Amino acid sequence: MTDRIAIVGIDVGATTTSAGLVTRDGEILAFAQTPTRTTGGGTPVDIVLALVSELTARARGRGIALAGIGVGLPGLVDAEKGMMIYAVNHVPEFAHLPLADLLRDSTGLTTFVDNDVNVLALGGHRFGAGRGADSLVMLAIGTGVGGAVIIGDTLVRGHAGCAGEFGHFPIDPRGPLCRCGNRGCLNAWAAGTSVAERGRERAVAAPRSTLMDLAGGDPNEITAELVFRAASAGDAAAGDIVAEACHALGVALGAIMSGINPEVIVITGGVAESLMPLAGEIRRHAARFALPQAVASTTIHLVPGDKRRTVLGGAALFLYEVDRRRTPLESRRA
Amino acid sequence: MTDRIAIVGIDVGATTTSAGLVTRDGEILAFAQTPTRTTGGGTPVDIVLALVSELTARARGRGIALAGIGVGLPGLVDAEKGMMIYAVNHVPEFAHLPLADLLRDSTGLTTFVDNDVNVLALGGHRFGAGRGADSLVMLAIGTGVGGAVIIGDTLVRGHAGCAGEFGHFPIDPRGPLCRCGNRGCLNAWAAGTSVAERGRERAVAAPRSTLMDLAGGDPNEITAELVFRAASAGDAAAGDIVAEACHALGVALGAIMSGINPEVIVITGGVAESLMPLAGEIRRHAARFALPQAVASTTIHLVPGDKRRTVLGGAALFLYEVDRRRTPLESRRA
Repeated sequence: MTDRIAIVGIDVGATTTSAGLVTRDGEILAFAQTPTRTTGGGTPVDIVLALVSELTARARGRGIALAGIGVGLPGLVDAEKGMMIYAVNHVPEFAHLPLADLLRDSTGLTTFVDNDVNVLALGGHRFGAGRGADSLVMLAIGTGVGGAVIIGDTLVRGHAGCAGEFGHFPIDPRGPLCRCGNRGCLNAWAAGTSVAERGRERAVAAPRSTLMDLAGGDPNEITAELVFRAASAGDAAAGDIVAEACHALGVALGAIMSGINPEVIVITGGVAESLMPLAGEIRRHAARFALPQAVASTTIHLVPGDKRRTVLGGAALFLYEVDRRRTPLESRRA
Repeated sequence: MTDRIAIVGIDVGATTTSAGLVTRDGEILAFAQTPTRTTGGGTPVDIVLALVSELTARARGRGIALAGIGVGLPGLVDAEKGMMIYAVNHVPEFAHLPLADLLRDSTGLTTFVDNDVNVLALGGHRFGAGRGADSLVMLAIGTGVGGAVIIGDTLVRGHAGCAGEFGHFPIDPRGPLCRCGNRGCLNAWAAGTSVAERGRERAVAAPRSTLMDLAGGDPNEITAELVFRAASAGDAAAGDIVAEACHALGVALGAIMSGINPEVIVITGGVAESLMPLAGEIRRHAARFALPQAVASTTIHLVPGDKRRTVLGGAALFLYEVDRRRTPLESRRA
């Protein structure tokens, strides 16, 4: 019998939506996940409502009181309004939908909504690699590159909610085209979709390669993970792509250390696992692009993406907002 | 007869040290300045002590009570210890000198010391272009490029005091060498010394030019200001240098808008006056390197450098630290 109060943490990902019952100490009492988009299973919004119902029922069954809900969404979120105001491609259904109100009305629970990487950073700062740090910057590298900034006890959302958009850091204006229309953004070098796309282009141009072999001869099978594997197996084109991604990450990390000089930088997300063996190289690149004092004082962690961390983040968002608004953390109906 | 309590604001610049008596509302009751380094006039530290003596005497003569002292120093400052820990070339005398303690002992006044651009940013946030902004980033472009970040009511110093070091933002690794040893830092494109040095190189290579004419045929007479004047007079080489500086500034501004998305960015310092006619071009460059939402929500001000603003900054530093430490703002002996 542990803490009998829990928070529902939700993360809506491009492919998977996760939910958990999390105690104030970061213990996960229950965890569930489901595809974000199912054939015939309703919209991604229905999926969230169904997961919340499932977890509140589980809590009720186990006598756990619920304090509230925290949700991470993949897009630009107006945290005050509790809704996404600009969606990335995956989940347009959430754009301009007052999700916090919707969940509060359907559950009676206080609900906070924020950008998924902000949520992940709050989780890392409260429960994870950044616990106790006076400042933390998170870089989440998955299909795209997202980011978040925590200074002191404040999540820096930015004047229009755009802070932490490190994916659009200008690395090299002569670089590849980014979705945003600019050239050479960090996204265009290091995001999973960019690494995969660049891998496909190179494999098509040079089909007799380790990369193409690993893809079974079908360039459409090339993923970012495959490019990293091919690079470590000695494939020259894949090696170039990975080296350029590491260089771009180094430039971005240098700029972050020069601009913010945080105590901790956490690199996470779906591509982070592939980057783990390259941690030393990434740190060496980063050290070239900032003052030695900044480099020496900032710790860079690589943390593999893990859906359990995203639901911890949802709980951390709720606790952060409660602290910030000085609302007493009392249990509401379970 | 205005506010009868004032703060002594001090700014130590590369060439000029300034001091003022400033009210809590930002009125300058007295102002004095003197060269930072005089032949036979003592060290830059002696200059500061002499200016403080002069102003405290003036305050006494006018019946003005003094609340404290705020000092801006050109280098890396440990604000807690009240001393510079890493000097730029101009004033090595302040390195590891406990200036806050020294001034407190000699005057009996509570004294705070910080990096000069942090001080200027606090002044801009309390009294100037950033008044009331929820967040402010300052870029001070003089002999070098310095910066500062204010989020909410917090001056972001960074984990090792290196936040706001935008001068070392990596713009292009194929660019000119920076003092720090890296290539293509913002400093190397946009700092006054870099613009002047690049102007001299180009003028020596092509002596029959408007730039060389403006310098009276002596490349050693070429300053940043002269390069900007030559560019606006149609000199091709100077035009290239200015265009590259604007591009580099645009990249840095884009990164700042993407990473921090502040409400206000203030560009100031000795080179800012030369940049004023280029404001539109700089904003256009910046808009290419960040998301439209970030660009639309951030206001970029160009504010000419002015020594009176630096002493306002010193007073703002004192008021900031008093607020932060919740020390009652009481007058001490005048």
